[in-house]
Amino acid sequence: MIYDLIIIGGGSAGITAGIYAARQKMKTLLLTKSFGGQMVHKSVDIENYPGFDKISSLELIQRFENQLKSKEIEIQTDKVLSLTKDDYFNISTESGKEYQSKAVIIATGAEHRRLNVKGEKEFLGKGISYCTTCDGPLFSNKKVVVIGGGEAGFETAVFLSKYASEIIILEHSNLSKASKEIQDKAFELGIKLITNAEVKEIKGSNFVEEVLYNNESIKADGVFIQIGYIPDASFAKDLVDINERGEILINFETLETKTPGLFAAGDINVGKVKQIITACGEGAQAAMYAYNYLIKEYGNN
Amino acid sequence: MIYDLIIIGGGSAGITAGIYAARQKMKTLLLTKSFGGQMVHKSVDIENYPGFDKISSLELIQRFENQLKSKEIEIQTDKVLSLTKDDYFNISTESGKEYQSKAVIIATGAEHRRLNVKGEKEFLGKGISYCTTCDGPLFSNKKVVVIGGGEAGFETAVFLSKYASEIIILEHSNLSKASKEIQDKAFELGIKLITNAEVKEIKGSNFVEEVLYNNESIKADGVFIQIGYIPDASFAKDLVDINERGEILINFETLETKTPGLFAAGDINVGKVKQIITACGEGAQAAMYAYNYLIKEYGNN
Repeated sequence: MIYDLIIIGGGSAGITAGIYAARQKMKTLLLTKSFGGQMVHKSVDIENYPGFDKISSLELIQRFENQLKSKEIEIQTDKVLSLTKDDYFNISTESGKEYQSKAVIIATGAEHRRLNVKGEKEFLGKGISYCTTCDGPLFSNKKVVVIGGGEAGFETAVFLSKYASEIIILEHSNLSKASKEIQDKAFELGIKLITNAEVKEIKGSNFVEEVLYNNESIKADGVFIQIGYIPDASFAKDLVDINERGEILINFETLETKTPGLFAAGDINVGKVKQIITACGEGAQAAMYAYNYLIKEYGNN
Repeated sequence: MIYDLIIIGGGSAGITAGIYAARQKMKTLLLTKSFGGQMVHKSVDIENYPGFDKISSLELIQRFENQLKSKEIEIQTDKVLSLTKDDYFNISTESGKEYQSKAVIIATGAEHRRLNVKGEKEFLGKGISYCTTCDGPLFSNKKVVVIGGGEAGFETAVFLSKYASEIIILEHSNLSKASKEIQDKAFELGIKLITNAEVKEIKGSNFVEEVLYNNESIKADGVFIQIGYIPDASFAKDLVDINERGEILINFETLETKTPGLFAAGDINVGKVKQIITACGEGAQAAMYAYNYLIKEYGNN
């Protein structure tokens, strides 16, 4: 059987693409390792998803997942190993299955890069965060440490300055690679940068209390880890171009990659705004453009 | 006072932009004639907004509006008459107020398109309606004609089937562009579609009685006009380029118009996917890019 559309990924973008694909009555398969994407790792409430003043990310995931499953769509829990194209798109998976489709949406998201130090897992959601927009407002008049002195780290620090009373950036190398512009801005705001700082451990009791780096200790009420994302588009490497961060290049209007019929939505693509609501919007957009592609290429209806 | 950001419009895009702007602590003013945008005119339950299996558009609007109002943002109910730019953006409104800001997001959506046939004005509110939610229940056991066989026309017809005894859709072209799903549902419900039907006049005495199309006449107790929307960006005409449909041209990555610092989100721009979830996504995107613009241009914080 040849599907109209295969959606790879079960985060916000993939789920929304699935809801829209079902509505368009495309014969659709959604393949994902699991549901929820990065939302699974968020432990604080979401306050910026329109429709919910405040909702736990686990509840929002559950609502997304249930809504998807109420639609006419086939779902397989599996990991995609390779995506190629000849007459149709061909997908092979970890469990040894092969699937074919006329169009594909990649919505595999990205994982926050981990520090891999002691305390990082333990205090996630207890003072440690990877998402500044989500969690910044929780740190009013607190002292926070930002780990990572690149552009994202400085952006985080500048943003946090509206809330936090003291901000220190720890950068492991001897030089920040952030733009001069954002560095100047940060220093004007009294944000401190410590270079050559190798973080060893994050400590606390119920909540984060200090960060150990080199042979130093620094008190902290909160820790924002901003050392990059790991998007993984390697399974599709022959069909897409990626940037230096591994994100898939797209036509921003249609979300189509360089391969006709292949779309990329959500955090896996080069779009800079990485939010749940934008991922959802892109999922819908990709599904509608995939539908148009099918009509154009295959006269599907 | 000079605002960081003024958002014009209180539909899905404008409200989401407001939520994000407040989150970024931009000094923001939201100007709108009213809240909800086109959602106010939607008659069927919304089943494709992620997070809600099924929700009435009025309830979703209310949730959006309440969520916005819980944030730190100034809101004025007013209509924008002109937008110009010198050192800052200048806005003048119907109530005679003047506002200034460093960045602007236009999120004014679109208005219902008129048929412009004889009788349309005369019988508005006397059997003719653009708002199915408002007026549908008035047509219990009546015969109604829906003009426009696109998605909105079919949605209207399906909704009306709860009340009306007979429903005929008139579509001017030779083919409906509505999704197969809604068409199937409509036909199951006994709704009729007449294609190649060019409406010439709507006739009656005190109330609508018949619709003339091509050389035919059809009896009707009510007429619902669903032939699309007109975006209105005329207040900003010196600062934006528009397409033949009146939609604002944008950079699809940033949603910025040809004027730096001026963004357009939602149905007012040329984006083809006109859905609540995409409008919300774009509202967030525009707010984040407006924030970046402020930092770059004004070193704002």
